[in-house]
Amino acid sequence: MNVISNKWIGQRTIRPDGADKVTGRAAYSADTTMPGLIWGKVLRSPHAHARIRSIDTSKAEALPGVKAVVTAKDIVDFPLDKPVMLGIQDMRWMCRNVMAREKALFHGHPVAAVAATSERIAQEACRLIEVDYEVLPHVIEIEDALKPDAPILHDFIKFDGKPSNIAGKLEHKLGDVDAGFAEADVIVERSFTTRPVHQGYIEPHSCLVSVSGDGKATIWSSSQGQFMVRAMTSLLTGIPQSDIRAFPAEIGGGFGGKTIIYLEPLAVVLSKKSGRPVKMTMTREEVFRASGPTSGSMSTVKIGATKDGRIVAAKGVFYLQAGALPGSPIRGAAGCAFAPYNIPNVHSLGFDVVSNRSKVAAYRAPGAPIGAYAAECVMDELAEALKMDPLELRLRNAAKEGTKAAHGPVFPRIGYEETIRAAMEHPHYSAPLGPNQGRGVASGFWFNAGGESSAQVNITEDGNVVVTTGHPDIGGSRASIANITAELLGIDYRKVSVLIGDTATIGYSNLTGGSRVLFASAMVVTQSTEKVIKTLCERAAKIWKIDPEAVEWEDGEARPAGDNAGKFPALSLAELAARATETGGPIGAGVQANTTGAEGGFATHICDVEVDRELGIVRVLRYTSFQDVGRAVHPSYVEGQMQGGAAQGIGWALSEEYLYDKQGRVDNASFLDYRMPVCSDLPMLDTVMIEVPNPKHPQGVRGVGEVPLVPPLAAVANAVYAALGHRFDSLPMSPPKVLAALEPAEA
Amino acid sequence: MNVISNKWIGQRTIRPDGADKVTGRAAYSADTTMPGLIWGKVLRSPHAHARIRSIDTSKAEALPGVKAVVTAKDIVDFPLDKPVMLGIQDMRWMCRNVMAREKALFHGHPVAAVAATSERIAQEACRLIEVDYEVLPHVIEIEDALKPDAPILHDFIKFDGKPSNIAGKLEHKLGDVDAGFAEADVIVERSFTTRPVHQGYIEPHSCLVSVSGDGKATIWSSSQGQFMVRAMTSLLTGIPQSDIRAFPAEIGGGFGGKTIIYLEPLAVVLSKKSGRPVKMTMTREEVFRASGPTSGSMSTVKIGATKDGRIVAAKGVFYLQAGALPGSPIRGAAGCAFAPYNIPNVHSLGFDVVSNRSKVAAYRAPGAPIGAYAAECVMDELAEALKMDPLELRLRNAAKEGTKAAHGPVFPRIGYEETIRAAMEHPHYSAPLGPNQGRGVASGFWFNAGGESSAQVNITEDGNVVVTTGHPDIGGSRASIANITAELLGIDYRKVSVLIGDTATIGYSNLTGGSRVLFASAMVVTQSTEKVIKTLCERAAKIWKIDPEAVEWEDGEARPAGDNAGKFPALSLAELAARATETGGPIGAGVQANTTGAEGGFATHICDVEVDRELGIVRVLRYTSFQDVGRAVHPSYVEGQMQGGAAQGIGWALSEEYLYDKQGRVDNASFLDYRMPVCSDLPMLDTVMIEVPNPKHPQGVRGVGEVPLVPPLAAVANAVYAALGHRFDSLPMSPPKVLAALEPAEA
Repeated sequence: MNVISNKWIGQRTIRPDGADKVTGRAAYSADTTMPGLIWGKVLRSPHAHARIRSIDTSKAEALPGVKAVVTAKDIVDFPLDKPVMLGIQDMRWMCRNVMAREKALFHGHPVAAVAATSERIAQEACRLIEVDYEVLPHVIEIEDALKPDAPILHDFIKFDGKPSNIAGKLEHKLGDVDAGFAEADVIVERSFTTRPVHQGYIEPHSCLVSVSGDGKATIWSSSQGQFMVRAMTSLLTGIPQSDIRAFPAEIGGGFGGKTIIYLEPLAVVLSKKSGRPVKMTMTREEVFRASGPTSGSMSTVKIGATKDGRIVAAKGVFYLQAGALPGSPIRGAAGCAFAPYNIPNVHSLGFDVVSNRSKVAAYRAPGAPIGAYAAECVMDELAEALKMDPLELRLRNAAKEGTKAAHGPVFPRIGYEETIRAAMEHPHYSAPLGPNQGRGVASGFWFNAGGESSAQVNITEDGNVVVTTGHPDIGGSRASIANITAELLGIDYRKVSVLIGDTATIGYSNLTGGSRVLFASAMVVTQSTEKVIKTLCERAAKIWKIDPEAVEWEDGEARPAGDNAGKFPALSLAELAARATETGGPIGAGVQANTTGAEGGFATHICDVEVDRELGIVRVLRYTSFQDVGRAVHPSYVEGQMQGGAAQGIGWALSEEYLYDKQGRVDNASFLDYRMPVCSDLPMLDTVMIEVPNPKHPQGVRGVGEVPLVPPLAAVANAVYAALGHRFDSLPMSPPKVLAALEPAEA
Repeated sequence: MNVISNKWIGQRTIRPDGADKVTGRAAYSADTTMPGLIWGKVLRSPHAHARIRSIDTSKAEALPGVKAVVTAKDIVDFPLDKPVMLGIQDMRWMCRNVMAREKALFHGHPVAAVAATSERIAQEACRLIEVDYEVLPHVIEIEDALKPDAPILHDFIKFDGKPSNIAGKLEHKLGDVDAGFAEADVIVERSFTTRPVHQGYIEPHSCLVSVSGDGKATIWSSSQGQFMVRAMTSLLTGIPQSDIRAFPAEIGGGFGGKTIIYLEPLAVVLSKKSGRPVKMTMTREEVFRASGPTSGSMSTVKIGATKDGRIVAAKGVFYLQAGALPGSPIRGAAGCAFAPYNIPNVHSLGFDVVSNRSKVAAYRAPGAPIGAYAAECVMDELAEALKMDPLELRLRNAAKEGTKAAHGPVFPRIGYEETIRAAMEHPHYSAPLGPNQGRGVASGFWFNAGGESSAQVNITEDGNVVVTTGHPDIGGSRASIANITAELLGIDYRKVSVLIGDTATIGYSNLTGGSRVLFASAMVVTQSTEKVIKTLCERAAKIWKIDPEAVEWEDGEARPAGDNAGKFPALSLAELAARATETGGPIGAGVQANTTGAEGGFATHICDVEVDRELGIVRVLRYTSFQDVGRAVHPSYVEGQMQGGAAQGIGWALSEEYLYDKQGRVDNASFLDYRMPVCSDLPMLDTVMIEVPNPKHPQGVRGVGEVPLVPPLAAVANAVYAALGHRFDSLPMSPPKVLAALEPAEA
């Protein structure tokens, strides 16, 4: 640990973006404008599955006010015979997701786009585009997609040698699972389903793009990564990355859903063709129909334990919906389900299943809530079968330093046990419950991530500090980086301004995702700041004409040390900054690195519910999250992440789902009909931060943003079971389902 | 010399900003807009000199639509008793130039400013501000300002112990000038005057400023230095530099006039008070009345030589107008006048004189043209007196490597002699002349500058390059930096994108001025690129598992060298970029430095004129500039600088001047009445680049932007003398003056 004084790390400092956000000054993607801009609109498939025989855009192009039309032939085609990977994204699918090519694969799939002098003209022009479709049978649900006679979405996808809707498989094995189950005294096995749920970010996808006469593109858009926007747009349009400048606007929520792009390449082509800046903004309906929710799933989990509560084997099979193009988070489901436990024999299997729904996107701990829902419900039943406190069962089997996880790593010092103990000792766990009330617990794990980050730390002439990083700030990275930089430099955090660079002005930085941003950016900021401190000491040494090694940096000033201690008056940051030119020039340093050492995150949640037997409504009465947060650099943000994850998990468990009609069209594509929890649905969500510093990080940072969404599905389900004595094996536990379950009992 | 292959250095590559500029997409300061912006307007003094007794803004504030009013009390006051320097600017004067404090010191001096929902309302509100003035006697010209009974502008300025309009003095001495003149066989002494001339940039001063609720300011404006904008605005508003982000817009000409600011601090205060973004744009009239031209001057130069043409002594006395607040370029006049010559005895004196005119600003080689005009006219007369060819006289006395200049330095390898020889051998110099035609020559020197610059060189994932520097690109630095980076990396220049960072995203970089930008930025870009190349070699070594020292970079690829030569196939930049993550992370490097080694620039010009004896018009028939340009990294831009300097010098010599009325008001504050040369006034301006590489620069770069304006005044004057036999001792040599001079002869 480099930082020991902790003057600023751990403080709830004022957030640097706060004033802008509450006063409406913060610029989100749709807030940007340019002289001469025109409007882009997307024509979307009215069919869930249809071959595109031809597209005639001539009438649209002839409409006055229309400046450009784009179809798949304007987007770079990635042939199907070999993958072209960009991070975890396969460009064969990305290019077909951005614009339908051979077939329209879901209702709402982009088929063409138009740019015109007004949104209305662009919409009218979309109506004038004639698409000759051959409508094909469609399939929506996993169970239907797996049927032998199911409509096949992609002929080229084979499973077991035959065309299939199973597009991929992932397997983790540890020990001998059959031998393990043979040792077990108690085995519980159960199947579950979950429904796709949307990330529900407030800000719809939007971009403003301007392409110059020599083909250079400037993109303003909200995303989880300006470098992702640059890279994907480059690949899909053929413009070199160095000719694309992607500016990160403030972001109104992403939760994983903005780790890919939808509009930017279309807008680039429209701008290039028209010579005008092009603005494109999705409606909320378009967001629901055509941007990626997370997968629906079908899972079976089997866990065996000895009668003293030692888990000896676990098996999981997870089918996840990919949407219309391959790629679902099977790694999160299969990898995270059993990771909280020290289990000698594990077999975890994931299958990626395509069907005629919008392509899934990442959603906060992608796949992990699905895996944990199944595993943690089974753990609950196992505890019941063993007549053991469910937290006690978890504690006995908890992963700790040295535990080998089925998905690969051997854990270093982790704080999972601490979360269980804290939950057991918390007043919530022993508070009395009333009639129709129940309490559930669940744990969860998320990988967390490191990866590429860049930072630049510059000292201003007046002795303040500007720090630039390369990731959009979603969860408070600017405030946290200000705390860390102030701590390292020994100055007031208000002297540090932190901002997010665009793709031209900061080094490559991977996505804001995977709970990686503070972990990775704090590392490169720390290294940069240490370089700056070294330079400051050298400058003081130059002024004092002593050896730089004989200078130490403390409390925001250079002091002569050792034999020279006290010989010269200390030089403050401001004094050294003022003399920068004479001592060698401006003071600043940058670091670009591929960071490693992001270790997993663990959480344990307690949930109390009450079931309204008349209306079938499950109300969450009390909710407490216990999480190993590593070092809470800015506690308010960490708590916010914990609360946000719990809220989203409660929605997933109780109310959110897509409803499809018989033609394969989403029937509830609005916030009115798609039921996300609102404030009045939730109690105050309590949080208990447990700080077990990550030994591989200079400030002890662990990712904290995703694991909060892993336990809630099971915690709520286990609470409902405790309240009702009925175990739902499918989410959401919405009023119709609850009423149906109650009916025989009530009747 | 690091660069020897010269594949791109020296090429006339396509300018990266060209397409944007010709299509109108380039964003100048007035092109930027923001939702909710309001308009700022300045109330200016109607008097040339007046004490401000009081300002009543209540009526203006009550006008519907007015959102904020600012007066001097809102701007940070710098007390008069000690200087606060920012670079060469004294903030005591800057704060009083931006907004009149105790007194209005010139007609057009800002007295208050208003922001309102429309420009019209802001103008109307300005009219409603009641200022109680005590009108004082004013003084405009130097000769009047020096009179014993002259109105004194500033009581606190003393010269020889008495209140005076002489605000400063500068002296250079070398050898013993009296002893020198005693050796001389021929001595010529003559006095001259020049008039203030405006830089004449096409783009008026403009800015858009937004201050957030927590006091953070964002500034979009065109200037010659975003860091200057940040620093001055910080000092004048009290906002820390780290809370100000200054974006450099494209710039529509500066020529030195945009090295200071006028509107930004006013807009910041107005935005802070109103909570709205504020846009302020000067009219052309405001630019003429209230932004700084260069000084008018009054000079006496005396040069003595032996009869064989050896100059033995030179003396110069230069009085320069500062405008209403101290600070004129006396250093340029006194320092550059005699610098082209190896003269053992020099005494050069400069005086800074205030009067009730707008404060002067830098103008391309500030002061040097004034000094050179006097010195080079005297050189012409001296040659005539010695019956010696004027270039031969210059060649005999030319400064060369080892010459000690009166202003300080001993010259390293310079190319001044080469410019004279080239001029002597050029067909222009021996071309026949007709009646009423004359040919003049003159030489000139400019210091050039180094100083602080920062650069960042990043490799994109697809193997292209983005270079960011911190200086506004006025003279082609982006194109030149692309050439240099391409050369160093051994790749096509089209793979390099070069852009200008804002104050947050690039390290501190001093002004675009002093002919310093390519010199300094090429240095830091070279160092950054060398670091990148080192990293690329290390990455290749990692892939090949060999020592990094055993890798060489050539032709855009890493090759195994020495014993390993040929053992592995070379790895291109694109291949190494694609493998950056696995080999250690993103590839990029930045350097911030205070550069030194910018050595002086020299030029010799030949000018042919014809005098229209009927209309008094002097027409330039032919003009050729010979300049030591160091290394011409992008020859088209170098030639453009040479042509531009000649054009501006011709205007200064022949037609440009301010006309004041008796109340001290500028009478010709428009492009219609202020006569700058236009295309039809000029012949094709020929250029001869002489490349004598600067030995202290990796690419041999010398500054080229300012010296082209040093010789023209004298070159034209000497040509007019040759044509007419009459020597004008005051500029401009405009038709009325020419006719007046011709009258006795014609009559």
